[in-house]
Amino acid sequence: MTHKVAILGASGYTGAELVRLIATHPSIEIAALTADRKAGMTMSETFPHLRHLDLPVLQRIESVDFAGIDLVFCALPHGTTHEIVASLPREVKVVDLSAGFRLRDLAAYEKWYGAPHAAPELQEEAVYGLTEFYRDDIRTARLVAGTGCNAATGQFALCPLIKAGVIDLDEINIDLKAGVSGAGRSLKENLLHAELSEGYHAYAVGGTHRHLGEFDQEFSRLAGRPVEVQFTPHLMPANRGILATVHVRGEAEEIHRTLSAAYAGEPFVQVLPMGQHPSTRHVRGSNFVHLGVVGDRRPGRATVIAALDNLTKGSSGQALQNANLMLGEEETAGLMLAPVFP
Amino acid sequence: MTHKVAILGASGYTGAELVRLIATHPSIEIAALTADRKAGMTMSETFPHLRHLDLPVLQRIESVDFAGIDLVFCALPHGTTHEIVASLPREVKVVDLSAGFRLRDLAAYEKWYGAPHAAPELQEEAVYGLTEFYRDDIRTARLVAGTGCNAATGQFALCPLIKAGVIDLDEINIDLKAGVSGAGRSLKENLLHAELSEGYHAYAVGGTHRHLGEFDQEFSRLAGRPVEVQFTPHLMPANRGILATVHVRGEAEEIHRTLSAAYAGEPFVQVLPMGQHPSTRHVRGSNFVHLGVVGDRRPGRATVIAALDNLTKGSSGQALQNANLMLGEEETAGLMLAPVFP
Amino acid sequence: MTHKVAILGASGYTGAELVRLIATHPSIEIAALTADRKAGMTMSETFPHLRHLDLPVLQRIESVDFAGIDLVFCALPHGTTHEIVASLPREVKVVDLSAGFRLRDLAAYEKWYGAPHAAPELQEEAVYGLTEFYRDDIRTARLVAGTGCNAATGQFALCPLIKAGVIDLDEINIDLKAGVSGAGRSLKENLLHAELSEGYHAYAVGGTHRHLGEFDQEFSRLAGRPVEVQFTPHLMPANRGILATVHVRGEAEEIHRTLSAAYAGEPFVQVLPMGQHPSTRHVRGSNFVHLGVVGDRRPGRATVIAALDNLTKGSSGQALQNANLMLGEEETAGLMLAPVFP
Amino acid sequence: MTHKVAILGASGYTGAELVRLIATHPSIEIAALTADRKAGMTMSETFPHLRHLDLPVLQRIESVDFAGIDLVFCALPHGTTHEIVASLPREVKVVDLSAGFRLRDLAAYEKWYGAPHAAPELQEEAVYGLTEFYRDDIRTARLVAGTGCNAATGQFALCPLIKAGVIDLDEINIDLKAGVSGAGRSLKENLLHAELSEGYHAYAVGGTHRHLGEFDQEFSRLAGRPVEVQFTPHLMPANRGILATVHVRGEAEEIHRTLSAAYAGEPFVQVLPMGQHPSTRHVRGSNFVHLGVVGDRRPGRATVIAALDNLTKGSSGQALQNANLMLGEEETAGLMLAPVFP
Repeated sequence: MTHKVAILGASGYTGAELVRLIATHPSIEIAALTADRKAGMTMSETFPHLRHLDLPVLQRIESVDFAGIDLVFCALPHGTTHEIVASLPREVKVVDLSAGFRLRDLAAYEKWYGAPHAAPELQEEAVYGLTEFYRDDIRTARLVAGTGCNAATGQFALCPLIKAGVIDLDEINIDLKAGVSGAGRSLKENLLHAELSEGYHAYAVGGTHRHLGEFDQEFSRLAGRPVEVQFTPHLMPANRGILATVHVRGEAEEIHRTLSAAYAGEPFVQVLPMGQHPSTRHVRGSNFVHLGVVGDRRPGRATVIAALDNLTKGSSGQALQNANLMLGEEETAGLMLAPVFP
Repeated sequence: MTHKVAILGASGYTGAELVRLIATHPSIEIAALTADRKAGMTMSETFPHLRHLDLPVLQRIESVDFAGIDLVFCALPHGTTHEIVASLPREVKVVDLSAGFRLRDLAAYEKWYGAPHAAPELQEEAVYGLTEFYRDDIRTARLVAGTGCNAATGQFALCPLIKAGVIDLDEINIDLKAGVSGAGRSLKENLLHAELSEGYHAYAVGGTHRHLGEFDQEFSRLAGRPVEVQFTPHLMPANRGILATVHVRGEAEEIHRTLSAAYAGEPFVQVLPMGQHPSTRHVRGSNFVHLGVVGDRRPGRATVIAALDNLTKGSSGQALQNANLMLGEEETAGLMLAPVFP
Repeated sequence: MTHKVAILGASGYTGAELVRLIATHPSIEIAALTADRKAGMTMSETFPHLRHLDLPVLQRIESVDFAGIDLVFCALPHGTTHEIVASLPREVKVVDLSAGFRLRDLAAYEKWYGAPHAAPELQEEAVYGLTEFYRDDIRTARLVAGTGCNAATGQFALCPLIKAGVIDLDEINIDLKAGVSGAGRSLKENLLHAELSEGYHAYAVGGTHRHLGEFDQEFSRLAGRPVEVQFTPHLMPANRGILATVHVRGEAEEIHRTLSAAYAGEPFVQVLPMGQHPSTRHVRGSNFVHLGVVGDRRPGRATVIAALDNLTKGSSGQALQNANLMLGEEETAGLMLAPVFP
Repeated sequence: MTHKVAILGASGYTGAELVRLIATHPSIEIAALTADRKAGMTMSETFPHLRHLDLPVLQRIESVDFAGIDLVFCALPHGTTHEIVASLPREVKVVDLSAGFRLRDLAAYEKWYGAPHAAPELQEEAVYGLTEFYRDDIRTARLVAGTGCNAATGQFALCPLIKAGVIDLDEINIDLKAGVSGAGRSLKENLLHAELSEGYHAYAVGGTHRHLGEFDQEFSRLAGRPVEVQFTPHLMPANRGILATVHVRGEAEEIHRTLSAAYAGEPFVQVLPMGQHPSTRHVRGSNFVHLGVVGDRRPGRATVIAALDNLTKGSSGQALQNANLMLGEEETAGLMLAPVFP
């Protein structure tokens, strides 16, 4: 049985990545693609790498006929998401890739995103989309909120450790390195090639990055008490990839054992042998997460490093993984592509 | 029915790319992987991006049991290929990715590769592996010689034009730009990141690049008389991709029509609308070729531009495409992956 | 004696490069810097790499007091240049880096730039700023028109050859590769890092690039008859550097001798030994041009390759070299910085 | 008065960088250049970007006549340095860029470098070459030990803070990002462009990087008691630049005040306004260090970020700065070049 999906916001990088992944999916068909400013264009005009595919022309959301659509991927900026998801027919399932439904606490949403939540009633039914930790809820959800790509990376390193109580909750320091595509296809001076390549810098230093809202929510929930981490993202001169270097207090061996056990049956999460650690280049273009653990020379300290592709496991791959669950398909369908290296 | 294959020289980039592609192939199973210096290592030790796959350990060629192997991909340096292919059991089909069997004329081989051909009897049965032009011969071949990656790119732009007689055979100028991975995983000072990134230069200028042997052979054969092109490759600060900018004499519209007709039914060759032209970034990681034609301001001159991924359509993708034909499988099996962008 | 200069359009890359070069100049002082949209900002806010310098705050052009200013570098978009240069006091010398005054023929200007020339009377006194070929005129000029960066690169390879009559004027083919910074600091989707890095493509194919106006003008003037070249620029994933691969008809040895003789006394133009050819990485950040000549396997054909840094010798370095002459200073003052490699 | 210098190990990146910087130095002349494997080659053959300079041919160390040489820059691997420096005439001053003389404690040297110190008597007179903290000692030294490039970056962020006692000595965490050129021009698979570009990873995780020897030595000395930091370096896909993100406990304002006061008169160290932080791209090719301080959302925690160019301020620029002091020249001579951006 083939499921029909629509992708709202298909002219951005996460939209294109969804199309790339779905192209090899055995039972999902793309029925509609939207893009406000580029409505009327073909997908191959805005993304020539997809020109071999037979795809619907880009249209405005208002002109989409949602009858017959089983699931919508909503890859729009968070500002407009609430309203648009609220306007969709109730029988359509939704995987939202924006930040619109990630924070369960409405005050937290307003704090981190600077505007009141415009669809509080939908928030109540939204399931946080980190598949490996919310699998059962996602299976029956109508609305799944895709996670932040940085937030996902940090959580893969930390959630099992917090849950198992093997690290000091007050001494978690996430020093993260993210590729350029995470900032989207937006026209900003600091995203120009001439500005970005050949250099690197931190941004949102000091606890101001919005993905902290997700860390706070999820880590506190797992710990059963407030957890506040330090988080320092950096922008890297590469297009894809997030590397989270997480400095923690705990015994490295126990940390490694805990992660290995937690992810033992997971198709996409690979825990490297003790002492090894990952590189973003080895997950590029794939839905895999690589995790490594190394003990520090100072006893009781360890570094956990997580790597994933922000456009795949960090957003569109995760979205498809969730959609598979929601549609009753094999969770890994369309997602077993090997990373592209070099 | 599942076919068993061996990959000889699996620790190089074309070997890894073969594994990546075969990983999603429905009916090919990797039964053996060899690497001389890295024998005993696992594939994930030499290529961590493949660690999610269940693969045989790297071994020396001598220890491979070829009984039960249907086809061998030989991704070794051309110097050692003749001997090794000659030593394989006759019932094993061979797709060779080296330069060992590309040139039918033994004197031409010696001229371009600086050593006598060591397996002339095998050369006679070898089929030149540019699938789109030798499809029927490949289907029944025992030994197929994969093309040079630059040679493939230039031929996609030119073969139909030479065959149709729509361009001046004495005025063909191929100015080509190639990514770094085409040079392989070899330890050379000029391939270091610090040497290569942020700059570009020509190499093998003046008609000295070995792939000219293939151009001469194939173009002369199609034309029925000697054809000598100018060919100037450049090394680009990017890992994948070849862009061949081919300057020709002829009418742009006729050239475009000729290419469009020639590739009308081809699953992997895309001729862009007249006046448009391709970019390597839009074929990265895929088996597609994009072709564009633009007329010059000087009447009677045109530029044909071809783009492909050197590791995929330029070598390992082409090899799998040929193997599919030789094994009686669907030609496109394992090869319809969309390009990875950005 | 210290000369006071103003830089109009200091928030772009050529403006910043002028500041970088002048910072080590023994006798030039920057008295004013302008930037329309960024007026009121400090230079270190828009270009943090210049923060160690004591520089004037960015202001609007209208607020500049030109009394006491000896020379103006005008680094504005060509559309606004005519009017602004016309409004400057006559006693101020001007080096214009835009395309506003490069084409002596008003009809040619209108053809290539799509609008009538708005300062025809100034055009008459403008000197074309390729220093090595217009040195004496520049010395006494009031207004010098900086060349296009691609146009400069091609001319370094070709002007002496055309003048000496050693190549076929009807068979000149310039296949050029240019870095990203030549496109300026403008917010265009195709200049984003995620769009540009890791790939390459041609642009303005078929004789439509505006720098052809300069090639036509200068080559025809030298030849004494119309000369039309083929010109195909490509955009490279690197920030700085232009490599012009120029395919010509002529004897390689004679070509090499001609270039060597023409540039024998030039401080910035280096002709490599016969058979060697340059790389953009070896001129980065400097005012040097490297030239190489290689004969083709086909007798009577040769390839001349020129490399320079588009922001230095291709624009701001050239501008300072011209300003030195106009101000009676040593031509090389502030310009002998060695290239930065790696 | 002109000083004559020799550069031992001139075929590596730090050797070439020394030549680049000295090329604009008013009173230093390069009298000899050595390179073992490349003896007999010209400098322009091994580094074509220096071809405009009139330089001595590369020779073997044994053939250098040290009479008349005032100072030697020794840019050799640390393994051979002890013996060679010991063999130099006593009247020649030495700036060593290797790790040979950085650690005052012989046991520490053996621990971090895996071999006994071969010139312990020279070690006693060696001065640690972080100019801003050892200026007076360097002025009168005969042998100065250049610092590790990572070690320098971390120390610029931390030394004044440790000295002033404004941070918790037991909670210092240096998460560092380093460009490729720091690994030198050595033929290693992991330094190939195809391996390195488009990705990033940590290395020497867990307190195993040799530069920890320097951190331990210098921080403990300043603190008057043992200090052990956490240190996690990462390899970035860019050629130049080190960014040290240093997580500390202390009051951000006090930290910023302390750094501002400490570096108030320093020509090369720039402390950014409170809350701002640096990027490697804004110091590239220069001898400048940029420092920024940001307070964390968790009170009592702050992040100090330091950026410098590993080849300039991190090694060769620092070496020239020290040589200037040792030769009685202006400390900044040849070193005020502005960074190259973009």
